[in-house]
Amino acid sequence: MNSSLELLAAMLPESVDAALIISNENRRYFTEFVSSLGYLLLTREEAYLLVDFRYAEAAAKYAKGCTVIPYKLLPEEIGRLTVKHNIRSVMLEGSAFTLNDAESMDKLLKSNGAESIHSGELDKLITKLRVIKTSSEVDKIIKAQRITEQALTETLRLIKEGVTEQEIALELEYKMRRLGAEDVSFELIVIAGEKTSMPHGTPGNNKIKPGDFITFDIGAVYKGYHSDMTRTYALGYVSDKQKRVYDTVYQAQKLGLEAVRGGAVCGEVDKIVRDYIYHAGFEGCFGHSTGHGVGLEIHEQPRLSPNEKTVLQSGMVVTVEPGIYLPGEFGVRIEDMAVVTADGCMSLAVLPKELVIL
Amino acid sequence: MNSSLELLAAMLPESVDAALIISNENRRYFTEFVSSLGYLLLTREEAYLLVDFRYAEAAAKYAKGCTVIPYKLLPEEIGRLTVKHNIRSVMLEGSAFTLNDAESMDKLLKSNGAESIHSGELDKLITKLRVIKTSSEVDKIIKAQRITEQALTETLRLIKEGVTEQEIALELEYKMRRLGAEDVSFELIVIAGEKTSMPHGTPGNNKIKPGDFITFDIGAVYKGYHSDMTRTYALGYVSDKQKRVYDTVYQAQKLGLEAVRGGAVCGEVDKIVRDYIYHAGFEGCFGHSTGHGVGLEIHEQPRLSPNEKTVLQSGMVVTVEPGIYLPGEFGVRIEDMAVVTADGCMSLAVLPKELVIL
Repeated sequence: MNSSLELLAAMLPESVDAALIISNENRRYFTEFVSSLGYLLLTREEAYLLVDFRYAEAAAKYAKGCTVIPYKLLPEEIGRLTVKHNIRSVMLEGSAFTLNDAESMDKLLKSNGAESIHSGELDKLITKLRVIKTSSEVDKIIKAQRITEQALTETLRLIKEGVTEQEIALELEYKMRRLGAEDVSFELIVIAGEKTSMPHGTPGNNKIKPGDFITFDIGAVYKGYHSDMTRTYALGYVSDKQKRVYDTVYQAQKLGLEAVRGGAVCGEVDKIVRDYIYHAGFEGCFGHSTGHGVGLEIHEQPRLSPNEKTVLQSGMVVTVEPGIYLPGEFGVRIEDMAVVTADGCMSLAVLPKELVIL
Repeated sequence: MNSSLELLAAMLPESVDAALIISNENRRYFTEFVSSLGYLLLTREEAYLLVDFRYAEAAAKYAKGCTVIPYKLLPEEIGRLTVKHNIRSVMLEGSAFTLNDAESMDKLLKSNGAESIHSGELDKLITKLRVIKTSSEVDKIIKAQRITEQALTETLRLIKEGVTEQEIALELEYKMRRLGAEDVSFELIVIAGEKTSMPHGTPGNNKIKPGDFITFDIGAVYKGYHSDMTRTYALGYVSDKQKRVYDTVYQAQKLGLEAVRGGAVCGEVDKIVRDYIYHAGFEGCFGHSTGHGVGLEIHEQPRLSPNEKTVLQSGMVVTVEPGIYLPGEFGVRIEDMAVVTADGCMSLAVLPKELVIL
């Protein structure tokens, strides 16, 4: 077993003999092997990755820390391992097994004298491990972030009156892919003008015009790891109100980054940011959370949201992304990722955040 | 309610008061509304779509056949509707609810005096509806197919010695997107040379060289609907063996399309194709199924696989995609989608299938 699997094996409750992990992200986390289907069966002594014929060759070559078992009939192999390791109870990954999947697995285990455990306990144990990133994980997130920043910098040159949101989004994604992104972190948000008041708007056919804010909430995936960044630019000119809103978000985001440190409570970081925005005269205009963890998934633990009690620890990677949204007018959001350290945090973005008028 | 919701409401077992649908595809199927989160609660009398603040405005405008309820706290709204309609038992969508989701929903329903039903029954009812495509659904699949074919035709011009698989795949995706695809149907398969012997190879940095087969297994998504097509081309020249394998797959695929008709049994279509390949001297070289349904998902019911008893019906859309794979040498696959009619089928592809040497 490799170290992450050993850690998980050591965390298994005494009453449990094995854990069964099926989500793509968690299989990848523990074995570094990428596939769209597979079963990672972990006992206290050994870890097995069961894959079908499509992945047999590649898994044998690339999967780390586990014994690869290619299967023709999954029930036969699961049955064999259940007997071999005298497995009586198996924790299922409750966030990944659907009711239908679980029903089949229950029957299969039962026919081999084992019961399956449906609590969300296994997910909690895995989250405990995944929430603290290793330096190798942080490196991949940084690489994803650099790709995003370079692609955005190149794309900004194309922005002028009359270009549509969709055209910009498509060029941006194309550039990310050419720079080595294996995917985008999510459907890229490139929205302009009035639409910037919607935190989750999608790129449309509307043309960019002078006086518009243009919000980019974007990210790339590199070796499975996501990046997440938001920048808001203006075309041509801005009104005084736009400038005031931008400055408020800019300051709030700065305060948020300053508050992120090992030992800080997530809800308190959120409160610092939220209070600043509200006291600046924008109460009720910041409807989402201040931030979230990022890693193999775009949204992970911890959550920087109101009243969240989780304490930040060194090695967590979180976003800080306040915004102000004025329906019918415009919105501004600024977002960076940061890795938490004992006495502060290191922002993973190098792209400036001062207001740029294109 | 609209017609698809009415049909499902009429299919609910007598013992059940409501159904709860949460998968993105099924919510979209029944309401035509696109979102990444939402709860479609169907009673015999009425359908409700519960969405959070992000989708409140758009759902009210675009969701069809249901009452849209924006929620701040989901439990409150679910509780209110449970009481209003005197709901005592709710079928959960077993292919979409994870164990953790179901646990939360069970508690919520129980606190309102209702129980949830975890059988896979609801999924089966929905599949019965979705497996038969309306003409409007077929139109979208055809549009997705045309985008794919046009993008491929334009991309073929770029193929020459020294170009990598990844470069071709990226250009192809870019062209699809520019032609109006909202996404690709799956990570595009563009593989060359020896790699064509792997049914699910992924594009790499290897360069295309004369004598290579190049397999394109590709598809675009248009308004939620997928297309799926495979073509195998050659660069420069082919050996006699390559030609013989190509011709065998070509004939097998033709036979498969000829066998697809209303009333045909899926397993028998598979057998016709498989027998032809085996009798031509390639026994054991065709390891996957002959085809599958396509629609809002890339792999749907029915399956054209060995011993599958499902009977084809008019309005089903299936792929026919035999292949021959010779490890260490090369492989060939040819695939079209076809819509089943009473006395045959209509292929949805117009791109020729005769061997093309680029």
